[in-house]
Amino acid sequence: MHTYLDCYSCFVRQALEAARQLGADEQKQKVVLEGVLEALKDIDLSFTPPQIGDQVHRLVRQELGDGDPYRSFKETATREALALLPRLRKVLKEAEDLLDTAVRLSIAGNIIDAGVRSSYELWPTVQRVLSQPFAVEDLEPLRQSLADAPKVLYLADNAGETVFDRLLIECIEAPVVYAVKGGPILNDATVEDAQMAEVDRVAQLLSTGSDAPGTILDCCSKPFQQVYAEASLVIAKGQANYETLSEQGTKVFFLLQAKCPVIARDLGVPVGGLVLRRG
Amino acid sequence: MHTYLDCYSCFVRQALEAARQLGADEQKQKVVLEGVLEALKDIDLSFTPPQIGDQVHRLVRQELGDGDPYRSFKETATREALALLPRLRKVLKEAEDLLDTAVRLSIAGNIIDAGVRSSYELWPTVQRVLSQPFAVEDLEPLRQSLADAPKVLYLADNAGETVFDRLLIECIEAPVVYAVKGGPILNDATVEDAQMAEVDRVAQLLSTGSDAPGTILDCCSKPFQQVYAEASLVIAKGQANYETLSEQGTKVFFLLQAKCPVIARDLGVPVGGLVLRRG
Repeated sequence: MHTYLDCYSCFVRQALEAARQLGADEQKQKVVLEGVLEALKDIDLSFTPPQIGDQVHRLVRQELGDGDPYRSFKETATREALALLPRLRKVLKEAEDLLDTAVRLSIAGNIIDAGVRSSYELWPTVQRVLSQPFAVEDLEPLRQSLADAPKVLYLADNAGETVFDRLLIECIEAPVVYAVKGGPILNDATVEDAQMAEVDRVAQLLSTGSDAPGTILDCCSKPFQQVYAEASLVIAKGQANYETLSEQGTKVFFLLQAKCPVIARDLGVPVGGLVLRRG
Repeated sequence: MHTYLDCYSCFVRQALEAARQLGADEQKQKVVLEGVLEALKDIDLSFTPPQIGDQVHRLVRQELGDGDPYRSFKETATREALALLPRLRKVLKEAEDLLDTAVRLSIAGNIIDAGVRSSYELWPTVQRVLSQPFAVEDLEPLRQSLADAPKVLYLADNAGETVFDRLLIECIEAPVVYAVKGGPILNDATVEDAQMAEVDRVAQLLSTGSDAPGTILDCCSKPFQQVYAEASLVIAKGQANYETLSEQGTKVFFLLQAKCPVIARDLGVPVGGLVLRRG
């Protein structure tokens, strides 16, 4: 998905939030924003939003130093999701269609997203997503692909959401490789975050080797690129993975909540829509 | 109120929306945005947000030509508000405290605001505002000031909101001067819009002589400045009037809904809070 002019204001907002998370004072925040404004003037709109976002966050880090600005946000999100595990397992136990319910739970977890907004309500979201009709629903093609795939590549999105992913992975019979970011970007899950959610109990963890948002294949490590190329089935979580992989063909299934109006329009669904879409 | 770094993303969003309202194609929209990004790099944060907004919208007009991009938005808003008039009059007729209810209705009309978001629901907002407790309530000082004032200066905000203002003006015994913008800016009311809402039946219409958002006194005409200086009581509607006149002393009463998180924080109220505040 290419970048829209509507994305500019979001890049500015995200840069400011990241600078604040890194503890920058107002003077430093202003310097960061000025750099971002300058960079946005030369945007190539054919790039995906995560490619631009990557440049923006790189600027923030250049100015303020490396770090993991969303560390405490991510730990809190993971702890809160872990606390829900018994209730989520009960939901799954009572499910009429296990895969449908597990997919919904995984999509419910996608409400955790510091790139869109920093506050969310987890359990009410679970309840909504369990009863809300899908805006796009490729459940049967996913069921078929899961039955055929010798191995599944699962692209993680955010910390905390990882706990919900773990439940879906437990429903998948084939071995699963769970790919996480190579370094901190927004509240995206890294190896450390996936371990805190204990996803390593049910899947093999693999770093993409990139700390850009989404999955920009060219920026990923050779080992990851190879796993991606060999995978017959890829489950891609969240908006940024849709933005970066929407042209990657039918082996990719996108699971997300359409939180951003631009992405919702690109997908042809309402904001808030539940999406399980085959690429 | 000074400009916050949080305002940058809103300026970018507003410029894009205004360019689209003026019918610019994507190429032109991009040129406008690049100009705005350049201008924002040199922002003086001690200016009020409407002063910066004025520069931003001036840039849009420089690039795309003069016009009234929100003309149809304003006409629709006014028509919809006029259609509610019988129901609003019924609410007033049944009011226990006429001034309290009229102030609430006037604040309910402040939901119409293209600067914040382009969609709103009018009647549900009226119902909410009638029952919601005020976040700041200087009703008794306003009642006293109205009893004493020989004349009232009423600073309008948006087209459509004008219809709600008309009901409050009908409850004021002293003669009222209703000040509107000197030219189109966002969906702010001009003389034409106030006439469509028939505010001229109950008040003397006066142009501020400025097409900047809010009321930037230095930009207003000499006749308006004189009326403002002589007024013992000023009713100022909406966020932009608060942003520009918050330091103007006790003769100004601000009536608004806190729709923007930055303004809400400045006022010390939650987003969505109802504000009747003496300066």
